[in-house]
Amino acid sequence: MSLVDQLAAVVGAEHATADVPAAYLSDATESRAMRGDASALVRPGSAEEVAAVVACCYERGAAMVPRGGGSGFAGGAVPLDGAVVVSLERLDRIRSLEPGLWRMEAEAGVTTATVRRRARESGLLYPVDPGAAEQSHIGGNVACNAGGPHAFKYGVTGAWVTGLEAVLAPGELVRSGGAVRKDVAGYDWARLLIGSEGTLGMVTAVHLRLVPAPETARPVAAVYADAESGCAVIAGVLAAGIEPATLEYLDGATLAAAGASFPAALTEAAGFMVIAEADGSVAEAARVADELREVLSVGALAVHEPEGRGEIEALWRWRSGVSIAVTALHGGKASEDIAVPVEHLGEAIRATLEIGARHGLETCSWGHAGDGNLHSTFMLDASDPAALERAEAAASELFDMALRLGGTVSGEHGVGLVKRAALAKQLAPAELRIAHAIKDAFDPKGLFNPSKKLP
Amino acid sequence: MSLVDQLAAVVGAEHATADVPAAYLSDATESRAMRGDASALVRPGSAEEVAAVVACCYERGAAMVPRGGGSGFAGGAVPLDGAVVVSLERLDRIRSLEPGLWRMEAEAGVTTATVRRRARESGLLYPVDPGAAEQSHIGGNVACNAGGPHAFKYGVTGAWVTGLEAVLAPGELVRSGGAVRKDVAGYDWARLLIGSEGTLGMVTAVHLRLVPAPETARPVAAVYADAESGCAVIAGVLAAGIEPATLEYLDGATLAAAGASFPAALTEAAGFMVIAEADGSVAEAARVADELREVLSVGALAVHEPEGRGEIEALWRWRSGVSIAVTALHGGKASEDIAVPVEHLGEAIRATLEIGARHGLETCSWGHAGDGNLHSTFMLDASDPAALERAEAAASELFDMALRLGGTVSGEHGVGLVKRAALAKQLAPAELRIAHAIKDAFDPKGLFNPSKKLP
Repeated sequence: MSLVDQLAAVVGAEHATADVPAAYLSDATESRAMRGDASALVRPGSAEEVAAVVACCYERGAAMVPRGGGSGFAGGAVPLDGAVVVSLERLDRIRSLEPGLWRMEAEAGVTTATVRRRARESGLLYPVDPGAAEQSHIGGNVACNAGGPHAFKYGVTGAWVTGLEAVLAPGELVRSGGAVRKDVAGYDWARLLIGSEGTLGMVTAVHLRLVPAPETARPVAAVYADAESGCAVIAGVLAAGIEPATLEYLDGATLAAAGASFPAALTEAAGFMVIAEADGSVAEAARVADELREVLSVGALAVHEPEGRGEIEALWRWRSGVSIAVTALHGGKASEDIAVPVEHLGEAIRATLEIGARHGLETCSWGHAGDGNLHSTFMLDASDPAALERAEAAASELFDMALRLGGTVSGEHGVGLVKRAALAKQLAPAELRIAHAIKDAFDPKGLFNPSKKLP
Repeated sequence: MSLVDQLAAVVGAEHATADVPAAYLSDATESRAMRGDASALVRPGSAEEVAAVVACCYERGAAMVPRGGGSGFAGGAVPLDGAVVVSLERLDRIRSLEPGLWRMEAEAGVTTATVRRRARESGLLYPVDPGAAEQSHIGGNVACNAGGPHAFKYGVTGAWVTGLEAVLAPGELVRSGGAVRKDVAGYDWARLLIGSEGTLGMVTAVHLRLVPAPETARPVAAVYADAESGCAVIAGVLAAGIEPATLEYLDGATLAAAGASFPAALTEAAGFMVIAEADGSVAEAARVADELREVLSVGALAVHEPEGRGEIEALWRWRSGVSIAVTALHGGKASEDIAVPVEHLGEAIRATLEIGARHGLETCSWGHAGDGNLHSTFMLDASDPAALERAEAAASELFDMALRLGGTVSGEHGVGLVKRAALAKQLAPAELRIAHAIKDAFDPKGLFNPSKKLP
């Protein structure tokens, strides 16, 4: 029996095919012309079916690529060398939502937006807000340990996971943790799966803790003539001991690409923007917003404070759309999510521009300033091989720069395909040995998302 | 050359001895008569010396037990079978404290109290507050992933670690992360070391993130006639969507043992106490304290709200002393830190008493109610072997009960020696296989704290 026939016997003929639709061959790295090839697509309908699919592939020695919403920027979901794409889109149930106990259990294929909306409808907050919330899945968020603007105050995905259900080699459904909020029994192998990009196993469901939703949020956006003034203000927020929920920045080139749709007047002289948001009770958010306004006003050309839910949502909708606006400029982009200690943010922003200029690339950056996390971006035509090649060379210099500043080649997107060489520069030999030993322990045949994550 | 001579050559003769002082042979499990034996004590003075010590032991096949403050409740620091005790007490430097950047790098031997005090002196908060803060070391906190009352709002130790320096087999000093706040490059092996109780390597220094200290804290303590009334109030706090910094409980038997020193009048009818603390700006803490008071007053016999720093510190000092007061009653205790989903807290408290009664043991419990984390405690005379034996049998039933309720055998103390058999019941076969594979990957000779943590 062929592999596809065998998979069809597990999931039903309508959910297994050797004729893999194009949509399953790429992720957000399509903007830099990455596209894979797959021998089959299988869409299991339950965790048990995922286990059976993995067992089948593992026995036959077939490589597997787990797929969430396909919004990743590192090529983690791009199938290589005829691997089997295991799409988790049908695992889309919220298994439980217990508002009075501040928790939810969601299957891997539930979108991030659904997790957030369902929590919010119960008066609770799931605070992690990576981009593409309507597209990305909570399972993918866990696989990448996704961040986003509100990670500054609330932490990244892993901070909210109290339990995991996953299929491990050679096809076993295993659970770790659950509704209990604290657990130090055993090694925390489930935490190792968080951020492992599907290379150690396939996450099928997650237990999430939630918190009471803040009554309100009060963003303050300020524009500056240049990055120096803006970075001084970012340092000023920290030095003043103010803790906003977000501390974002956008540089001048980003504003040039995306500023037209900014929901307020934007002066032509705007060379940098900082968005800091206060949240909490109405009184607390107002107090923190007052403090933020005072610090952000220093050297600002203008300060924009949206009022009311509609205006506030418009600001964040604009912020979420920045990546798309930047891509639209030339039809493509290569964007790398380096992170550095926050005191080096200004230097990293400046160096990003210098590197791009040296390679003849239009360049911009924006990101999560408080976490020192840049989205250093080269805007290009994805059908221009020479530009793509220059972008690869430039990205390599970006990674060197981040490491020189004591940072990392990936703050939140993961390694996937695109940062494997860079990772080799970041890890010490002992770390590399450990990484390979961990991979071997979880995946002795090397069939879980091969050629990803590891150098 | 003997091992001790070889170690003396590394650390100096005054810091290596075969004549191991008694203080290095036990930890807090001395209250249940646990004591080990060691062939040598070595006290390296730097991370490099730790690496040299490990290299020396690893080459000779000598088992090592890393030792912090020795305040653990699971026997993790008790040396067995003539192991070498590697005390990290001389690694007591705060390598850096950067108030404007909200971070600190501390060596493993810095006490938890020092970390907290130094942060506070800079207007910052290191919020994790396990007991015995003057004795326990930050390295031990990391090794056990320690919790404490404020973990309810702020999370456990691991939530604050952004980087680790550790000595791994066969004696290599390795660093992961650092000052950067977000990093998803590579597998998060450092996170695996957090909570590994020294069985995978020895942590020599940690990078901690900090937050601006809340302006004030406002605890509300309320007493009830019984656990039912108290647990209803705990559920009520969650259902009302109030997020206190702590949500603690103490049962009637605990109050009977420790209540005499409670810093306010305590009615004889007090059968249960809840301590919830609001923190934040003065206004915010007052607002949350008002909400807490309203919920906690339902069915309360009395409500105590300490005013001013002195009274508030007195309340928490009393709370910290509960463990000692309970031990003092009969000279010893066996205390197990099971955790259950919070809706089962009342049942776990009741079952704890039933199990103790069945085994003829005086029994009490207190703990971190919001996290469903009990300190289920059998008070006994540690020189009475029959009582110790009954306590072991009772503890085994406690663990079964926690697992039946969907909980864990250890919420914050770790497995150490005392919960190895219990852990075997908690982990699925696949989890056990993974645990052993991880151990083998990090410690192929099995010399890091052998006979601990794993079943």
